[in-house]
Amino acid sequence: MVKIRATVAYDGTEFHGFARQTRLRTVQGVLEEKLSALVGQPTEVFGSGRTDAGVHARAQVVHWEQTAGPPPERYPLIFRGSLPRDVVMVDAKAVSAEFHARFSAVGKTYRYTIQTAPQPDVFTRRYAWQMSAPLDRVAMEQAAAHLTGEHDFTSFCAAATPVVNKVRTVSGITLHQDGSYLHLYVTGSGFLQHMVRIVTGTLVDVGLGKLDTVAIPEILTGRDRRLAGKTAPPEGLCLWEVVYDEDALDQPHSVR
Amino acid sequence: MVKIRATVAYDGTEFHGFARQTRLRTVQGVLEEKLSALVGQPTEVFGSGRTDAGVHARAQVVHWEQTAGPPPERYPLIFRGSLPRDVVMVDAKAVSAEFHARFSAVGKTYRYTIQTAPQPDVFTRRYAWQMSAPLDRVAMEQAAAHLTGEHDFTSFCAAATPVVNKVRTVSGITLHQDGSYLHLYVTGSGFLQHMVRIVTGTLVDVGLGKLDTVAIPEILTGRDRRLAGKTAPPEGLCLWEVVYDEDALDQPHSVR
Repeated sequence: MVKIRATVAYDGTEFHGFARQTRLRTVQGVLEEKLSALVGQPTEVFGSGRTDAGVHARAQVVHWEQTAGPPPERYPLIFRGSLPRDVVMVDAKAVSAEFHARFSAVGKTYRYTIQTAPQPDVFTRRYAWQMSAPLDRVAMEQAAAHLTGEHDFTSFCAAATPVVNKVRTVSGITLHQDGSYLHLYVTGSGFLQHMVRIVTGTLVDVGLGKLDTVAIPEILTGRDRRLAGKTAPPEGLCLWEVVYDEDALDQPHSVR
Repeated sequence: MVKIRATVAYDGTEFHGFARQTRLRTVQGVLEEKLSALVGQPTEVFGSGRTDAGVHARAQVVHWEQTAGPPPERYPLIFRGSLPRDVVMVDAKAVSAEFHARFSAVGKTYRYTIQTAPQPDVFTRRYAWQMSAPLDRVAMEQAAAHLTGEHDFTSFCAAATPVVNKVRTVSGITLHQDGSYLHLYVTGSGFLQHMVRIVTGTLVDVGLGKLDTVAIPEILTGRDRRLAGKTAPPEGLCLWEVVYDEDALDQPHSVR
């Protein structure tokens, strides 16, 4: 039995999200279908977490186990020829049996991209939230600072979120301007459903002058989804990086 | 009667090219439909030239005439709300009655983009020809120099091209490397069908070492499509700029 860890990039535009769903095209579904055919038996793929429909990934991390199949290092090339063009396996390697794409992760970074321009760039509409009004980035940074740290993010997650404990730690929100594009990098130990998109929608309200920075602490303490801004559209969101404590993970055992 | 000149950007992925076709989605068809509805009468849109199915445009130039309708400057904003998301009107202005998007043009630049990387970038697959093998850029530049100037480009156009005179002047082919992306900028006074894509396909054969640079002059003089390389795929091609002799064009007459 070999456990394999792989990095996967995907364009979420034509997927109903990462997680497998009956009769819907999902990233997990596509990976499992191709992998099962390749190794000759049903194979389950575990991801670091779900991404919503329309959300992209630069570096989603997955793992699976196999008793037969090609050496891990060959997967990216093999899949280059067989995966649909909107999923790419960036790398793959054997890891210790203790590794788990989800439970071993210690943090994640998402990037949310906004384009503000009088006319949107027709070539980035699938990868950015495009708006014509300018944003006050300084105000957005001040608001972001209020969201950094350990907070109850009840106001910043989908109202139907079933988890009880909604306390999460956001270790940083960084805004980076690149021409007409504003990238928000949000790093944390864990995220609730729609959390990055609601954080973004709320920061955009601040950037547009619709919401005052000082309202952010009140929104947090109010613990009510209706207090925060709207959920930013999925196309601007990208799972940028999954962080593992590499030193704490064992060295790979290729065959045991 | 007002003549209006406009710059249009489009993502060619979901269009059957620029030129109007019955029952197929084309850029000209979409523009004419929206424009006719807006000004209240059938309105024909003239482009600087056709682009093939799947080919993009950063700056296609079009013109049309209208007796009623909004002031030209308002078109980009009006269309922002009504055009589908894969077409953007970048600017629009009144021009002299003598202006013609096609016949007034004195040259064009196309950009062809190739990505060479072990794993393709999943986010640029609609806008680049992606290949894993590296290209010898110096050899490609040497081959490109042989194609620059006035030549009979019979070997470098679709075999079925109906035009008789296949002599064209390519004023420059510039290769620009940007990370894993190689951009070929091809400028000329006029282009035959598939010409830029066949030029690209042939230069790629040189870059891969399949074809020697010295073969280029023989391919030109052979005047046979079968001698040149394959037609590069449409997704890498973008109409980058249409050049007009602005000084020779009259000043705009907004109302006459």
